[in-house]
Amino acid sequence: MSTTAAVAPIAFTRGVPPIEAIPFRELAVHTQAALLEQPAAMFQYAPIARHRGDAVLRALIGQAHDADADAVFVTNGSLQALDLLAALALRVGNPEVWVEAPTYDRALSIFRRHGGWVSGVALETDGIDVEALRSRLGHGVPAFLYTIPDFQNPGGVTMSEEKRRALAELAVHYGFRIVEDTPYRELRLRGASPPTLRELAGPEHVITIGSFSKVLSPGLRVGYVVADAQTSLDLASLAEDTYLSPAPLAQAIAARSLASGLVAENVARIRALLGPRHDHAVGAVREGLGDVLLAVPDGGYFLSIRLAVAAGEEALLRAALDAGVALTKGSAFFACAQPDDEVVVRLPFQALSPQDFADGVRRLGLAIESLPRS
Amino acid sequence: MSTTAAVAPIAFTRGVPPIEAIPFRELAVHTQAALLEQPAAMFQYAPIARHRGDAVLRALIGQAHDADADAVFVTNGSLQALDLLAALALRVGNPEVWVEAPTYDRALSIFRRHGGWVSGVALETDGIDVEALRSRLGHGVPAFLYTIPDFQNPGGVTMSEEKRRALAELAVHYGFRIVEDTPYRELRLRGASPPTLRELAGPEHVITIGSFSKVLSPGLRVGYVVADAQTSLDLASLAEDTYLSPAPLAQAIAARSLASGLVAENVARIRALLGPRHDHAVGAVREGLGDVLLAVPDGGYFLSIRLAVAAGEEALLRAALDAGVALTKGSAFFACAQPDDEVVVRLPFQALSPQDFADGVRRLGLAIESLPRS
Repeated sequence: MSTTAAVAPIAFTRGVPPIEAIPFRELAVHTQAALLEQPAAMFQYAPIARHRGDAVLRALIGQAHDADADAVFVTNGSLQALDLLAALALRVGNPEVWVEAPTYDRALSIFRRHGGWVSGVALETDGIDVEALRSRLGHGVPAFLYTIPDFQNPGGVTMSEEKRRALAELAVHYGFRIVEDTPYRELRLRGASPPTLRELAGPEHVITIGSFSKVLSPGLRVGYVVADAQTSLDLASLAEDTYLSPAPLAQAIAARSLASGLVAENVARIRALLGPRHDHAVGAVREGLGDVLLAVPDGGYFLSIRLAVAAGEEALLRAALDAGVALTKGSAFFACAQPDDEVVVRLPFQALSPQDFADGVRRLGLAIESLPRS
Repeated sequence: MSTTAAVAPIAFTRGVPPIEAIPFRELAVHTQAALLEQPAAMFQYAPIARHRGDAVLRALIGQAHDADADAVFVTNGSLQALDLLAALALRVGNPEVWVEAPTYDRALSIFRRHGGWVSGVALETDGIDVEALRSRLGHGVPAFLYTIPDFQNPGGVTMSEEKRRALAELAVHYGFRIVEDTPYRELRLRGASPPTLRELAGPEHVITIGSFSKVLSPGLRVGYVVADAQTSLDLASLAEDTYLSPAPLAQAIAARSLASGLVAENVARIRALLGPRHDHAVGAVREGLGDVLLAVPDGGYFLSIRLAVAAGEEALLRAALDAGVALTKGSAFFACAQPDDEVVVRLPFQALSPQDFADGVRRLGLAIESLPRS
């Protein structure tokens, strides 16, 4: 691989938005407007009554989810929301957390850090394996089930409406809570969105996590939870005991961006940017690596592929780096050990030009070929 | 108390800066400058290499503490820093945390939430009771000792240089870590600051926590830890697993405010504001309630008083509210139960006019008189 070792590796790693997807000029204008309107409040602690978050922002998020503003809690990015939720849910009682296999690696580590006993339920091309879930529920329920129903990270899979209805029924019947994480939901490139799990099973059974990171700006660090009034208040209390006060300016900028239509405009802009990238990426994988996709996503950031690699994951990651392509460790997306000779590789397509993505796939192909076959 | 029940109560509660202590116009100018210089970076995730915080800000904080920038970790307010530190220190091994009695109530609840076994060492008028500490150390050491050496919350006490030297020697001799929390240190109204514990015992034994909340702006939510390079990196990793990325804009504003001299100017302005409030407050307490002060602070936000109240704390808090003055529960500042008939009351003077403070003390006096004597 000496011909490629000297060039910068192509990064199939983090799910960072491309800079073209962040409307930073408009965000600067909203920042100025917020500072003009409430100059002092932006730099003071939020009043205690506002620890659930900016009132205007919570009302707007509530409207979008058919929820009361009091059911909404806004925090420093959606990972912080997940951390607080896990701390709250796993403080006492049932430690079991069920997740899709594979799922978001940072969610796994948060659940474990808070004492969760995490186990996976297989992810199929149309979402979680509902029959496997049903048979497990015969033996007991989890504290909560964590799912990313739209354009899943890392699988790219969207849960079908049929499976959503079945999952919602199971949650109601067996009495457990679903945490649905929806950062990519609005980045749909074709087709119509199935209903959310909240719409199907209601706030007694579903806690929805959302984020402005993929639709507006990750640097703002604004994420939110839509639940019920009591859960929102419990989260705000725990947040107050953890970081005292939200950041008023960031939340005011998010509120202005929602109210003015900037978020909606920006989502349209991102779709126009990601559409061609998605199609080229799917084509490049099929052409270069064959029939290895876990799913053809209709949106979001991620493709994932499953490869038979006799030499194992470590060897593949090293060979890939030698060939000039950096990969994330796919095994980190699984709650339990995977077969040694089967490797899942996540290929984020959102931040790479079609040319770079195709180059990365070509290099990955060379890396695979360089490994011993058995 | 029917004559006062209808008026708004005077709040001897939170340690929130008065709005005159926040230079919000200058902060708005720095915000604009940061957005002009790095428009895109302010709204994107911080690069992974920056998860310890803004490079300029870390270098400036490091300079002020005679530390390398790599020893500095910047986070969303100093309470978040304390939360991450407690999580890290109490993850495995020794669960013992020693604190001053009384100490900051939110620190107590953070240590307990992370599984700490918290116990108090008496706070004297010149700082922690070093002899009591020495005799406890004969039986074992804590995971860390938490102290607020300057203008302590709630006591208003500053640890003398002599006690600092003794404490530093004990930490070195017995091999335990000190966490020194210094949000009020720069708000000294008279006299010279004793050395920090970090200066006396070094970064192997002392972790320093600082904040911009009391010297610049609480709404920015920027606090920091000065430790050693490894601790700073460990904190940054845990932060990344908790909230993914710092907020670039808030940290850039703090960096510009430090570099431009705004922080230093603002500290001078705050001292000029707080000096007369402090003196009037001390006078009002002595005149209205007698010799009840735990200490006469030379700076910071807080006076605290100890009252003999046969009827107990709950009765006093109720009577105070009836008399038109809201108090914080003093017993929450203690790791262990206090005598029923002895009540500690914190009287923050930073945000009240001399007239309001004196009125509050007068109402508190009426409340005390209204209670049964035995």
